[in-house]
Amino acid sequence: MDMISNKTAIVGIGISEFSKDSGKTELRMASEVIREALDDAGLVPPDIDGIVVHTDDASDEIAAVRTMGMGNLTFFGQCRWDGAPCGMVMRAAIGVAAGMANYVLVYRAVNGSSKRRMGTPSRDIAQMSTSALLQWTFHAPFGQISAAGAVAMITSRYLYEYGIDPDKFGWIPVVCRGHGSKNPRGMYYGQPIAIEDYRRSPMFTDPLRLLDCHENSDAAAALIITTLERAKDLRQKPVRILAVAQSEVAETEEKNCFYSPRLSELPEIVRVGERLFAMSGLAPRHIRSIQLDDSYAPLVPMQLEALGFCAPGEGAAFCEGGDRIRMGGEIPLNTSGGSLGEGYLYGLNHIIEAVRLVRGTSPVQAGPLSPVLVTTGALGPASGLIVGDGL
Amino acid sequence: MDMISNKTAIVGIGISEFSKDSGKTELRMASEVIREALDDAGLVPPDIDGIVVHTDDASDEIAAVRTMGMGNLTFFGQCRWDGAPCGMVMRAAIGVAAGMANYVLVYRAVNGSSKRRMGTPSRDIAQMSTSALLQWTFHAPFGQISAAGAVAMITSRYLYEYGIDPDKFGWIPVVCRGHGSKNPRGMYYGQPIAIEDYRRSPMFTDPLRLLDCHENSDAAAALIITTLERAKDLRQKPVRILAVAQSEVAETEEKNCFYSPRLSELPEIVRVGERLFAMSGLAPRHIRSIQLDDSYAPLVPMQLEALGFCAPGEGAAFCEGGDRIRMGGEIPLNTSGGSLGEGYLYGLNHIIEAVRLVRGTSPVQAGPLSPVLVTTGALGPASGLIVGDGL
Repeated sequence: MDMISNKTAIVGIGISEFSKDSGKTELRMASEVIREALDDAGLVPPDIDGIVVHTDDASDEIAAVRTMGMGNLTFFGQCRWDGAPCGMVMRAAIGVAAGMANYVLVYRAVNGSSKRRMGTPSRDIAQMSTSALLQWTFHAPFGQISAAGAVAMITSRYLYEYGIDPDKFGWIPVVCRGHGSKNPRGMYYGQPIAIEDYRRSPMFTDPLRLLDCHENSDAAAALIITTLERAKDLRQKPVRILAVAQSEVAETEEKNCFYSPRLSELPEIVRVGERLFAMSGLAPRHIRSIQLDDSYAPLVPMQLEALGFCAPGEGAAFCEGGDRIRMGGEIPLNTSGGSLGEGYLYGLNHIIEAVRLVRGTSPVQAGPLSPVLVTTGALGPASGLIVGDGL
Repeated sequence: MDMISNKTAIVGIGISEFSKDSGKTELRMASEVIREALDDAGLVPPDIDGIVVHTDDASDEIAAVRTMGMGNLTFFGQCRWDGAPCGMVMRAAIGVAAGMANYVLVYRAVNGSSKRRMGTPSRDIAQMSTSALLQWTFHAPFGQISAAGAVAMITSRYLYEYGIDPDKFGWIPVVCRGHGSKNPRGMYYGQPIAIEDYRRSPMFTDPLRLLDCHENSDAAAALIITTLERAKDLRQKPVRILAVAQSEVAETEEKNCFYSPRLSELPEIVRVGERLFAMSGLAPRHIRSIQLDDSYAPLVPMQLEALGFCAPGEGAAFCEGGDRIRMGGEIPLNTSGGSLGEGYLYGLNHIIEAVRLVRGTSPVQAGPLSPVLVTTGALGPASGLIVGDGL
C-alpha cells in the first residue's frame, strides 16, 4: 500500500545562517530560503502548487505565496509539535504521490532567539483549552514545565537503569560542535569544544549540563518535494525518499512520554524506526549516516538504542570517544552540527543535511553518503525519514 | 496519478446537537461525536491510527487519544482556515491511500457561541506576526475586519455587475431554514421562516440582512475515513470519495479575495469545481444534491455560478421561489439546514449530511441521493468533495 517509498524525492533545498539575532523578519528569512530552494531545484515560484507549514510559525503560506510571486495552490496544510519536520515531508510526499499537487514546498522560519520562543507565545493559563490543561495539570504544579525538565527526568531514569556515567554524554556535543565548527552557516563556525569544556560546563537541570542543551536560534530552511518522475527533469540529482514515518503513542504529551511503561525507551522513536525499516526494507547496518534529534545530548544514545543501532543501555558507550559517530567513522552523526553544533531549527536542518550528504555537498564531506536516516522529535510526537540514492 | 478517487471512503459519522450553549467542554463534545462515529462504523477506539484536526480547535489529538482510549498513531496533522473541512477529509484520504494509516479520524468541536470565537482569540495587534499584519494592513484601518464585511463588499459588486435584486437572496435562508426545521439536532428545529420574515429582517452589513448571516453555534462532528477495501468489511455501506480538492489562489487572504481580478467570481470555488469534476469525471448535471458554504446567503448563488450549475449572473434567479433547491427539487441544497438552517460548524456538518444523503438517512430524505457535492470555505482558502455510491 505504500505509495511514497522510492516514488518521491527531495529536489531543492535552502537554508539560512543560524544566529542569535538575524536582523530580519521571519517572512524575509522564509523568502530567502524559499528562493534558494527554488534556484537549487531549477524551478520558479509559479511552479509551486502545494505548501506545508508548521502550525507554530509566523509566516503562513498566504504570505509566502504573495511575497514570492507563487501561483494558485491545490494542496496546503500544517503539522504541529516540535517533532514535525519529517512529518511535514511526509505530507508533501503523499500530496505529490496522490496527485494533489506537483511541487510541494516545506519551510520553517523562526526568530527563536531574537524575537520569541515558538509554540503558543500568547497562551496563558486563563486561555488554555481544557485539553491543554489536561496535559499540564499533573506535573506543572511541581515545576515540571520545560522540555529540559522532561529530558532531565527521563535521563535520570536512563542513568539509573543502566548505571551509566553521565560524563559519557559529553561526546555528543564534542562531536556535534566539531562538525559544526566546519559549517560556515552554523552558529558555532570555528568553535569546536573538547571533552574538558563539557566537564567544566555548569549543571543546568541535573543531570543535564549546559553543553547538553541546544541554544535557540534565528534560522530558516526550505525543501521542495515532487514525484521521482518529475524529479528526473530537474537541476539536481533527486534525493529519494525511501521511507517516512510519524509516531504519536497513546501515552504521549506535547514534550514527554511520562506515562509510557518504560520512561527511558523513547517509545515514539522505537515505532518510527520500526516503520522506517519496514517501509524501506533496510536495517540499521545499511544506514551510512544518522541525523538525530540532539536538542538534548542524552537523547542521542537513547535513540541509537531505540532505532536498533545499539543494544539497550549501550548507546552512551557507543558514543564514547566520538570516533564511531564522527565524519569518517562508522556512522557519522549530525554532520552539519545538528541542534548542538549548527543551531536549533527543530530538525529541519537535519533533513537539509541528509540531502546534502546524499548529494555529496555537506560542508564536512568528501564524497556522497547514502542512505541517511533522520529523526525529528525524540520527546513526544515524533517523525523520521530515510533518504538516499535509491534502493 | 490520482490515488483517492473511488479508492477511499467515509465509513463512520457522528454529529452533536447545535445550540447556543452546549453546557459541555469542547473535549467532551469531541469525545461524544468520536464515539458516535466509531459506533456507526463498527470500530473501537484502538482501531484509529490517524487523526486530522483543525488548527483553531481546542481539543488536540493528544487529548482525544487519551480521553477515548485510542492507541498509537502513525499519521497526524492539521488543516487551517475556515474552509478546511473538505481539505481535512483530503488529508485523511491520502493518508490511508498512501498506507500511512488504516483508519483516520477527522473531527471539529467548537463552543463557538458560548465560549469564544474560533480563530486566534488571544492574538492582538501587538502579537501579530509580520505575515498576518500584511493581510490586514490595507483594509483593517478602514473598518474592513469581519467576514460579514468582506462578503458585503463582494456581494455589492455582484449586485452591481448583474443588476440583481438582493431580495432574491432571501430564498436561500427560506430553503435552508425549511430543511433545518425538520432536523431534530439543528438549532432551528421546528422554526421555518417565510420570505416575508426575510424582507422584515434588519439590515446587518449592507447589503446583507440579518437572515443572510449564520449564527455561531456550539457543535461538534466526526468522520472516519479508510480505504474502500477495508470499508467493505465495516458496518455501513461505504460512502465513496469520488473527488476531493483544495484551492488557495495567489490573490487570497484569510477571509477574502479582494485582490482577484473579478471580485464576484469566488476564484477558489471555481478551481475547486474544476478539479472535482476533472477528478471524478462527472459534470454538474450528474450531481444529485449540493451542500454549499452558506455562511452568508449570497455565497450560494455565486457558488452555483462558480461551479457551473448556472451561467454567470443567474444564480439568484435559479434560487428564486426555492423550488429547484428544495428537497425533492432539481438539486436540493443544504438538506440538513446548512449553516443558515442547522448551525455553524464551518461546513463539517455539510459533509456529514452528504454522507447521510448517500446512505439514505438524511433527516429530510425519503430515499438515497448520489452523488453529492460539498464545498467548504467560499471566502478565501477553500475545499470541496464529491461523495457517492461509486462511479
